Parts: sequence; C-alpha cells; structure tokens
Amino acid sequence: VAPRPITFLSDYGYEDEFAGVCRAVIAGVAPEAPVIDITHGIAPGDIRRGALVLANATPFLPAGVHLAVVDPGVGTERRAVAVRVARGGRILVGPDNGLLGQAIERLGGPLEAVEVSRSRFVAKHVSATFHGRDVFAPVAAHLALGTPLAQAGEKLDARSLATLPLPEPSYHGDHVVAHVLYFDRFGNASLDLRPSDVSPGLLSRGDQVELGLGARRVRARFARSFAEVPPGEPLLFEDASGRLAIAVNRGRAGEELDLRVDGEVVIQPA
Amino acid sequence: VAPRPITFLSDYGYEDEFAGVCRAVIAGVAPEAPVIDITHGIAPGDIRRGALVLANATPFLPAGVHLAVVDPGVGTERRAVAVRVARGGRILVGPDNGLLGQAIERLGGPLEAVEVSRSRFVAKHVSATFHGRDVFAPVAAHLALGTPLAQAGEKLDARSLATLPLPEPSYHGDHVVAHVLYFDRFGNASLDLRPSDVSPGLLSRGDQVELGLGARRVRARFARSFAEVPPGEPLLFEDASGRLAIAVNRGRAGEELDLRVDGEVVIQPA
Amino acid sequence: VAPRPITFLSDYGYEDEFAGVCRAVIAGVAPEAPVIDITHGIAPGDIRRGALVLANATPFLPAGVHLAVVDPGVGTERRAVAVRVARGGRILVGPDNGLLGQAIERLGGPLEAVEVSRSRFVAKHVSATFHGRDVFAPVAAHLALGTPLAQAGEKLDARSLATLPLPEPSYHGDHVVAHVLYFDRFGNASLDLRPSDVSPGLLSRGDQVELGLGARRVRARFARSFAEVPPGEPLLFEDASGRLAIAVNRGRAGEELDLRVDGEVVIQPA
Repeated sequence: VAPRPITFLSDYGYEDEFAGVCRAVIAGVAPEAPVIDITHGIAPGDIRRGALVLANATPFLPAGVHLAVVDPGVGTERRAVAVRVARGGRILVGPDNGLLGQAIERLGGPLEAVEVSRSRFVAKHVSATFHGRDVFAPVAAHLALGTPLAQAGEKLDARSLATLPLPEPSYHGDHVVAHVLYFDRFGNASLDLRPSDVSPGLLSRGDQVELGLGARRVRARFARSFAEVPPGEPLLFEDASGRLAIAVNRGRAGEELDLRVDGEVVIQPA
Repeated sequence: VAPRPITFLSDYGYEDEFAGVCRAVIAGVAPEAPVIDITHGIAPGDIRRGALVLANATPFLPAGVHLAVVDPGVGTERRAVAVRVARGGRILVGPDNGLLGQAIERLGGPLEAVEVSRSRFVAKHVSATFHGRDVFAPVAAHLALGTPLAQAGEKLDARSLATLPLPEPSYHGDHVVAHVLYFDRFGNASLDLRPSDVSPGLLSRGDQVELGLGARRVRARFARSFAEVPPGEPLLFEDASGRLAIAVNRGRAGEELDLRVDGEVVIQPA
Repeated sequence: VAPRPITFLSDYGYEDEFAGVCRAVIAGVAPEAPVIDITHGIAPGDIRRGALVLANATPFLPAGVHLAVVDPGVGTERRAVAVRVARGGRILVGPDNGLLGQAIERLGGPLEAVEVSRSRFVAKHVSATFHGRDVFAPVAAHLALGTPLAQAGEKLDARSLATLPLPEPSYHGDHVVAHVLYFDRFGNASLDLRPSDVSPGLLSRGDQVELGLGARRVRARFARSFAEVPPGEPLLFEDASGRLAIAVNRGRAGEELDLRVDGEVVIQPA
C-alpha cells in the first residue's frame, strides 16, 4: 500500500535546520510518503496565524496526514495530539493549543483523537524544546504508513481539544464591525467576515464603502480584484480564503492604512 | 508514460499557504510529477525580477512544464497563457504580463500558445485574486501529464504575447552606459550587459575600471571572482547568469555603493 | 540500485534561482534521488552558522550524500571536496573552508577525500562564482548514483581538510565562561557548552543561575523548557542540538539581553 501524503506547516522558519530535520525524520520512517510543505514561515509562536493559514489550505490538500507545529508551549503539560476527522479519513498531528481547530472544523469535526506525547513512535531521547523532530514528525510518518490511530497514542476525548479565541464580527442596522485577523505576504488584511455574512442590502460588489479605522474614515471600493481601483487606492474584496479583506492596489494595506491585528474595521455604505 | 517535471517560480513568499497550496493542487492532478521550486521569494509584484530569475534558471531546468506566477494584474483582463517553445517541447505557464518573455526567448521562441483563463482544467470556483491555485497550477499539472496544449485553452497568436520593457546599454567610443537590472541575495547588482557586448580593447579581465555612478566615480577591478579584491573593495565580474555585475567582496554592493534598479553605470578603463 | 538521498544546505536564500537551479541540476543527473533541503537561509557567507546547523542536523539525516555550500571564497584557490566518513558510508560535498568539519567529526571522522574542482562531473562551463550549480551539485548527484569517490576527483589527504576556529568555554572553580555560537530563528543563543561539560555541583536543573553578560548580571532559571519561567523572563536550557542556550520565554533573548555572537557569558549559581 502506498503511504499517504503528508502536508507540513510550522513556524520553524528557513534559517535553521528545524524544518529540514523534521523532513529527514519523516523520510527515515516513510521514505515513500510525498511531503508537501505548506509553509514554515509562520511568525514564531503565532498560533492564530498558523491555525488560519492551515485552515485556508485545508480544502486544497490531498487526503492524508496534516502535520502542523507552532508550539510555544513545548515542554509544558500541553498535550500533543493526533486527530482523525470526518472528511477523507484525514489525520491532523500537532500540539493541542488551538492550532488545529479551524482545520478540524473545516474537515467535518473530530472523530477520534489520541495523545501522542508518549507514543511508541517518539524518538528515544525526546528533546524538551523540539517536539516537531522528536514527537510530531515520527508520529505523522507512522500514521502516513497506515498505522491505526489507536496505536499511535492514548485515546482522549475529542471534545476536549483546545480551541482558539478569535474575534467575531457584530452586525448593526447600517454597519458591520469586523476585525483584522492577519496580514498576508502582500500586506492585505484578512477580516473575520465572509461576503455571505453581510446583507446584500448593506453591501454589494461595485459599491463604494466607508471603512472606519479608529478615528479615521477611508473610502474604498468593494471590488473583485486589485486592479479595479487605481494604484495606491484601497479596496475591500473577497480574498482567496473566502473572507473579506482590505488591500491597496500595488501597495500594502497593513502599513499604508496603519491597520493592526484584532483592530476594528467598521464597514458601511459610503 | 511518466509525467514531465514541473518547475515553479512565484512571488507567493514563504509566510502564507499560497505556494504550498499550488503544490497541493498539482499533487492532486499529477501526483507522480516531480516539482522543483525555483523560488517563491520574488518581491511581491516584481515582474521584472521574476522574468530575469526565470530566464537565468532556464538553461538548467529539466525539459518539462515551467510554471511562473508573478501576477499583480490578477483578476483583470490580462491573459493567462500556456506557451510551447522550440527547445525540448517545453511549455511555460503563467500570466501574460511579460514574466515569461525572457525565458521563452532563451528557449528558442514560442511555437504555439493558448489562453487558459477558461481552460477546462481550471477550478470550479475561480478566485478573483489567486489564479496560481485555481488556474495556473491545475493547467500546468494537466500539461505535465501530456495533455496536448490545444486542449488546455483557446489558441492565441504567439506573436501577441506581452513583452517586458528592459533598459538597454549604449556604447560610446571610450565608455559604455549600462543599467542595474536587479540585486541578488548577496547584494550584487546584475547589469544589462554581457562581456561579449564590450570590446576587449575597452575592457579586459584584470583591468582596473572606473564606474560612474551618478556624480561619483568608483574604481573597481574587472575580476573573475570576489576574492581577487580585498574585502570591502568593489569589483566588476561576469555573474553566474552571464551578465556583468558589480559586487563588493564580502559586502553588499547595492547598499555600499548606493545603487538602485535602473540606475546608470558608466563603465570605462581607469 | 536506488540512488542515495541527498541533503542540501546553503546560503543561497529564497529570492533567487540559486538553490532551485542546483536542485534542477541534481534532477538532471539523478532524477530518482530524493533531495531534502535542510535550509538555504544561512546568512550570506556565514560559514560558522552553516557548519553548526549542518552538524546539528547530521544525526537525523538519512545516510546518503550531504551537500553543503556556503562559499564566500568561491573562485579562489580554496579546494572543493567530497569526503567519505566512517558512519554509514556517508559522503559530504562542499567547499573546503571549514563548513563540513563539525559534521564530519560527528560522523566519525574522514576516511577518504577527493578534490572535485576539476572532476569529470563538473559542468562544461564552470562559472567563477556559482560552484554550487556547476561543481558541487553535479558531483553530489553522481555520488548519490553510487559512483565511487575515487572517480569523482583527485585524492587528497583527509587530514589536510580545513577546520573552523570556534570559541571554547573555560572552567573556573565557581563559574564557567561560555560564548554565544549563534542565534536561532527564535532568538535563542546557543552556547559553546554542553550540560555534561558542567559539574552538577556547580549547576543543576531547576537552579537559579546568574549570567554575567559584560557589565550586567542577569538572573535566569536553569530550566527544561521555555514555559517554566514567566513570559519575558530569561532561562538557561539544553537546546535541541544538545548545547546549553539562553532564551527568553515568548521573547527573543538575542535582542532582549543584547547578546552578540562570540560574546562571553559567565555562568554561576545565583
């Protein structure tokens, strides 16, 4: 039987051996398993960004094992988990700190979960600070080979998995209050709001909208794509993850509009 | 038949799921196709840098499908294309914004081209801002499987492909005026000039040359490699792409000589 | 016979075609050889960081060919080498500038070495500044295919391989003087000291220690992991490479404690 593909996301960056060594450990256990790096450039310890980037990727990933490690609590009592979800028999592996939650939800919710900190598959000597290498990578590789989840660790209650607090939009008669979830590489600000969350009476594509950013008011077009507004001008659009987002055509909305993560954005027709 | 290799270049960076998701989409269509990342670190929207980096890589890439996405005009009327070239039956896939032009030229010019925006292979729901995932990656993967180009989109006139304006050197009796095309990771400035463009009477390896940089005059050695000059000293050399370039041994020429992209460099014997 | 895996580390970064082109060259010679990128994010020319990152990774890498290129002296008389080591018949390939030394030592020392600058496997035209592409990658790929080392270049005396000067700790009655070797992505400072180098009488896990950093004295806990101290507080711990290191929980020790590479750290019980 061919091993299942493994996808891999982390905050290990590209300056050290961290991500490469995890791949080497996987290759040692499951040399035939295809490994697809989602990214290792999550900002150090930024669980939320990791959770959202993983969830954004999830619908496009091959059914297999989804390994994710953003783990500022490594070495503490936080659990290390492997979780089987409803869709495609996929298994998510990572720290139980909320990182996996958004993706698990998108995949239909958890069916079965195990604690893997003392799995039979972990390294002989487990470092206190690098469970990616010593716990998560070998467990993920064995699961990709088809090892049943129950053999990878101790059963735990899937309803007890950690969740991540996220801001939520609020809806008012003539406006919506949304929040910046994160900035992508292009400086675009992804909001906690989807187009279907907003009544078409309030907001339609092509409209001018007013964005309330703290004390400032900024006019923006609710556009489909960047080049519908002149270079340097702001727009509201549905980003590739399906959320509403703020961009500046050929610019960086985060810096140019002085936005910050969790900051409020009041959206109303102009 | 084994699928052809796919090479992949983009400005998607290493912080988001963008490049990884494209690889996942490719793996879904053509799981056996080898994928070689050239780079995903092209500066956001920098078509020229992408075009030159792709062209630099081209002579060394395996014959196959060359996927490239630097696409600030995504969602506009710019075309999305797949282009078969003379050499090796290779196919280039990407936005028709000049990004592919230098590489196509190096590969003997275009033989056949199709518009792929509405290809039968694009995703069911095409995002307005992420054609890498929804258009280019699936089209490239199907082409790697051997699908004939004509089945991937609508035929277009290969002579109508977009070209990229690039500076050109000018030759004078006792000097040459060149321009900075881009800076590489090491801070070296690649010029729009090849050694064969310069008469040996004007410039020979080992010579001291004078570089006119705006109002400044800098002496540099026309060397083969960095360490032929003392640390901190500038040199002119033929870089790995075959162009003349300015470096500072163990330093960063761009910063230390205050160079900028498109800036003039007047080169003459010292 | 299946080709051996190739691991690849360099300072080529993620902005240019450099690392991707080397992978393409490898794929041209040994398309079936698995390639594992350790990292290409070593700071430009930072041989020490490259040597330590490679050595950190070494125990976890599959037996095969370990290609490493951090090569500020490219184009000079520095040798280009391939070295077979005691453990696993592994072969290291790279410039002879100290980059490979720590890893060779960890792998049991050199058994056999060849100079590969004029190997039969180098490119027809060898660039003066990109031996990764033209010398090291093709040589590594041929060695992964099983070519005997002696056929890859001219024999050289393995005892003549370059070594890298590294600081060394000094031991005193009531304190140890260590040095910062490098900072990892998380800002943690890895020291030239292993826990087994320090007498348990002087220092035990759980103790408070005093770190002398120039004129400053900082109290830190000798902990197993970050979260044993409050956010923002410093700790001394054994890092994943087995060295003692200084961190700040949820912070960046390098910046927050104003440490620098090679800087002295005086460690004593508090």
